[in-house]
Formats: sequence, C-alpha cells, structure tokens
Amino acid sequence: MVEASGRPRGKRPPAAKAVAFEPMPSGQRPTSYDVARRAGVSQSAVSRCFSPGESVAPATRERILKVAAELGYRPNALAQGLISGRTNLVAVLISSLTALYYPEVLAELTQRLLARDIRVLLFSLHAESDVDEVLDQVFRHSVDGVISAARLADAQIRQFIDQRVPLVLYNRVAQSASAASVCCDSAAGERDLVERLLLAGHRRFGIIGGPEDSYVGEERRESALLRLAQDGITDVPMVRGDFSYESGGAGLRALMAQRDGYDAIICVSDLMAIGAIDLARDEFGLQVPDDLSVVGFDGSGPATWSSYRVTSIRQPVRRMTEAAITMLVERIEDPELPAERRLFTGQFIVGRSARL
Amino acid sequence: MVEASGRPRGKRPPAAKAVAFEPMPSGQRPTSYDVARRAGVSQSAVSRCFSPGESVAPATRERILKVAAELGYRPNALAQGLISGRTNLVAVLISSLTALYYPEVLAELTQRLLARDIRVLLFSLHAESDVDEVLDQVFRHSVDGVISAARLADAQIRQFIDQRVPLVLYNRVAQSASAASVCCDSAAGERDLVERLLLAGHRRFGIIGGPEDSYVGEERRESALLRLAQDGITDVPMVRGDFSYESGGAGLRALMAQRDGYDAIICVSDLMAIGAIDLARDEFGLQVPDDLSVVGFDGSGPATWSSYRVTSIRQPVRRMTEAAITMLVERIEDPELPAERRLFTGQFIVGRSARL
Repeated sequence: MVEASGRPRGKRPPAAKAVAFEPMPSGQRPTSYDVARRAGVSQSAVSRCFSPGESVAPATRERILKVAAELGYRPNALAQGLISGRTNLVAVLISSLTALYYPEVLAELTQRLLARDIRVLLFSLHAESDVDEVLDQVFRHSVDGVISAARLADAQIRQFIDQRVPLVLYNRVAQSASAASVCCDSAAGERDLVERLLLAGHRRFGIIGGPEDSYVGEERRESALLRLAQDGITDVPMVRGDFSYESGGAGLRALMAQRDGYDAIICVSDLMAIGAIDLARDEFGLQVPDDLSVVGFDGSGPATWSSYRVTSIRQPVRRMTEAAITMLVERIEDPELPAERRLFTGQFIVGRSARL
Repeated sequence: MVEASGRPRGKRPPAAKAVAFEPMPSGQRPTSYDVARRAGVSQSAVSRCFSPGESVAPATRERILKVAAELGYRPNALAQGLISGRTNLVAVLISSLTALYYPEVLAELTQRLLARDIRVLLFSLHAESDVDEVLDQVFRHSVDGVISAARLADAQIRQFIDQRVPLVLYNRVAQSASAASVCCDSAAGERDLVERLLLAGHRRFGIIGGPEDSYVGEERRESALLRLAQDGITDVPMVRGDFSYESGGAGLRALMAQRDGYDAIICVSDLMAIGAIDLARDEFGLQVPDDLSVVGFDGSGPATWSSYRVTSIRQPVRRMTEAAITMLVERIEDPELPAERRLFTGQFIVGRSARL
C-alpha cells in the first residue's frame, strides 16, 4: 500500500489530538521540548522555527506554529539573547531625584527604546552616590548598553570600558575617564540668567545650590558665582538644598537669616525655586517678583503653572533623550566609536518670577 | 622526584602569568570558558563556583575567583536564570500617566524590588489601552511576575493565567477575570469628600472626571454622583480630563460655560484640581475656597504646596507598593495561591481649597 505523502508509516508524527489528552501540568510554562514532542519534531526544529533567518520546511513550520499556539508557547527572549550575543536589554540608571523631578525623562526614554524593540532594565538608586552596589547587577545581566542619569565616579565609568559595555551619561560628564554624554549646557544657561538679572539692576544675590555630589547643581552654582564675580559681586550667601520643593523653602529661610534682604535668589532647580517662592509669600509676605526675584533651572512642568511661572532655563528634554538613545545604539553597533559629548543649549523662559 | 602537592606533573594548571601574555581580544566580554582555560579547570567547575550551594574544592575556588577578577568575568545572570527557572526579573507596566503623576510609585517599587534582589523590566505605554503590543514582549522575557499600573482588559489578564505568570494589579481591578490586586478605596474616599462638602452646605456641584478607560477615575466619578443623588442632587455638569494640570483648567473653563456658578468642583485627581484652582484665580478672578471650593484626589506632592493645599484623599502609596510586592513574591513562590484584593483606606486631607 502506497501512502500519498510517500513517507514511511513509522515516521508519521503523533496526531494533534495528543494535545487534548495531555494537558500541560498546571504551574509549568511550555518549553520548546514540549512543542517538539507534541509536534513530533526535534527540539532544534522548534528552535530554528523561531529564529530569524533559519530554514524549516513549510509543513513542519506550520505544524510547529499550530502546536505552539495550542500550548501557549513563546520562544524565550533571554535564551535567544544569550545565543545571539544581543539581549536587546538596556539598563537605565536613575536616582530617586530623577524619578521624582524628571519623570518625563524616564517615560520618554522607555517609550523611545521600546519603539526600537529595546527593553529597559530599570535601576533606581536611593542616593546619587549609591551606584557601586547596582553596577555588579547591571554587568551580570548582559545588557547591550547603559544610559545613566545617576552619578558615576570615574572609576565606575572605567568599569564599563573594561567590561566593554557601551555607556551614555545623561546630564553628567566624566571628569577624567572618557565617556559618551548628552547634556544641557548648564553653565551657559546659568550665565544667561544671571546676566539678565544684572542688566535689570539686581545687586544683592543669594544662591540655593544643590548637593555637593550633583554635577549639574555644581556647574550651575559655579557658573552663577563666576558671572557675578565678573561684575565685582563676591559677597553671595549660599545654602544647599537637595532639589526638592521643601529644600527650596528651607533654603530661603536660611538665606534670610544671613542678611537683611535680597534682590534675587538664584535656585539651581525649578522645584527649589517654587519652594522659595511659596515660602517668600507665606512666611515673609513678599511679592514675587516685586519684592524679590527668584529664578530656577529646568523648565519642568510645575514651573509653568500660573501660580509660579518661574523665570528659568528650559532643558530640551526630548531632544536630549533622543540623542542619548541614538548615541547608545551607535555604540552598541560599533563599540569602537570614540567618546563624544553632545551639549544642548537651554531655552530662556521669561516667566513672571523675576523683574527683568 | 616527589612534588609537595603529590599531584602528577602533567596535570598542573597553566600558571597565572598566562594572563599577562594572553589579553582578552578587545571588544569581547570574558566567558566562563575563558576563566576555565586560564585557571586550568573545567567550565563546569567555573559554573559551580558561581552557583550558590554547589561544591568546589577551596583551592580551586580561590584560583577561579582570582582569574575571574583578573579577567573582569562576571557570571551571566540571564543564563543562571534560564538554568534555575527563576530570572529574578519582574516586569512593571506603567502608562505615561503613571510615570508623570505617580513618579513616587515607580521609585518606591523599583527600590523595594532591588532590595529583594529582584530587577525591574520597565514597560511604559503611551495610552492606557495600548497594552496588547507589549504583553508578548513581557511573556517572552520569562519574567517571574508582573505588576501592572496600566489598564489590562480581562482577556489580557486571562493571558497571564494561561501563561502561568503571577500578576498583581496596582490601583485597578479585573472585572470578570480573577487577579490579585492592591487598591486605594476610591469609592469610599470620594464619598467621604462629597459628604463633607454637603455638610458644609455646598449644593451646586460640577465634576471634572478622568478618561473613560481609567478605572480609578470612573470609580471616583461614579461614587461622587451616587452620593450626591442620595441628597437629591442630580443636575451635576460633568466634563472629562486626562488627569493633567492643563485638563483641569480646561475642564473648569468648560464647566463655567455650562452654568452660572458653582459651590464646589469635584476633580478626580489632585493635578486636575490644581489646574482648576489656577484657572479659577487667573481667568475668573475667583478666590479659592471663598468663592469656589475645589477638591482633588491622591495627596500627591504639589497638592501639599502652600499655593494650593488641596482638600483631598491621600493614597497610602508606600503601604500599597509594599503590599503589591509582597503579594507578587508570594505568588511567585506559590503560583497556586488564590486571587486576593487588598483595599487600603485613603486619608482625608483637610487642606485649604474647600470651605468645610
């Protein structure tokens, strides 16, 4: 007797009805071996079926896909990543501050990476200086690359070079190690703000800076002091906040204790400016900007609200995010690319919190 | 000649100096095979050395760890996860709204999971109804479990059951499918707010609701309407916002066009309440709360700022986050645990934006 397919009887695969009689044991996810067994093919055929560019006979492919659908089998992305050497995973390092005060950066970053079929492994650090403990985890996950909006010491940056993991710094730069970075030009922005305040006749300044280990905070503070010194203004009381609303208010209270009055308070972030504005109104009964000018930095959401309209420098967050992703993807594709720094100019926001 | 170690000469491992003469080819990360070759041991010895609970002779372990440190080798967490069946990866699904308006949820969640040695694979969705396209990715990454603060349809929730992936919903519930969830009791909170407004004599109400596909938005809106109806108040103009500051202002403008005036505006989120307060002051010259009461919901950061002090219900975010993680970890350890809903009571915040 001749069979239509010409295939010897003994090699016929088990019929699909086997599925009905052998449900998956509960609590277990189906594997490529389960699919292979039920489709009557080898595990390597199942593996080839789900690997781009590999060849499988059309009839076999169809049978495998049918059984896979019945079992709810999906090829394991992590296993595929280990085989191909590309995991399509990118680690994003943020600090608590990033999450709370720059949430739009994280949302932008994640959505844009997903649109490029890259998944985000998120690491959130309590303190900016808390990085060491997570770096080991980052390296162990074989990520294709890393974008860091958290502070990295040069020794830590060198670990990325040693581990050959592409790294892009977001709003930070490496001091001595070479690393790709995308930044808003904080120094130029702050100089611009201070110049406008000087032009409008402000002379008595106070500064609410950021934490000592904040790169952008220090760059803004130093740039403001430098510009003031050029006009001979060197007696400038300074306090430090942690970029939060509360620390802006506390900062203004501390500054007011140091001197009789101010023409302008320079805050190195909008959120601290907002805290200072609220406290100036509430506790000192001051009109902003009539009695006191307050400037910030960032151009973040609440700074644009009509109760504040903070005079500030807006960072081009979307362009910076897109640039960071482009730089990282380029370096994943060619790890030998030289380090590069992309510096974006912030936009002056006239606002209503300074007499200009 | 007898050697001190008693080990036959031929089996002596290559000396450590080999490292100096054979640097890693540039652009490649060291593997367990590289370590094995240089330490003169088998690859399986290297693998055992980095697996908890596996035994390796102390001298061998020491040699392996020394070479691993020299080469900068780290065991691959993904490969270990594939072998152990546990990846220690949890997917967190958020929408743009979560990221922007509940950033503290994401920071809390990530830090608490990291503290338990669990890494976060972050998926951020543009629209709340945009989930389907990422679910396939979530399943393919063999995550141990999922916490979703994005909206899932019941058919999507059933996919998790079919794939045997533990799932915990954050501030959402499944309508017909059974799923573990942690929520703030929006209905009770909103009823509480409305009752206090009624007691203080408010009679003319307007509502700024959320998008139709927002579970918490609809629960709050319906609860407010129900409580008002119990006092015979059924003529309640309603507009919808998207939880943003801007949509709160636009919502108030639309409500003002519908009727001569209001005693109170019920906003289903604080951020919309803040937008409504700013617009009431700026565009209509109204004093809040003397001319108009505005209530919100969430107890989020800016709602506590002194320009607003929104009368609201504060969600116990930290307790909710810890509960979500506990529920997920329990279900990763025992996938057969029944579905459970944990409902937290929100805290009434008296604020200064309503006449009470």
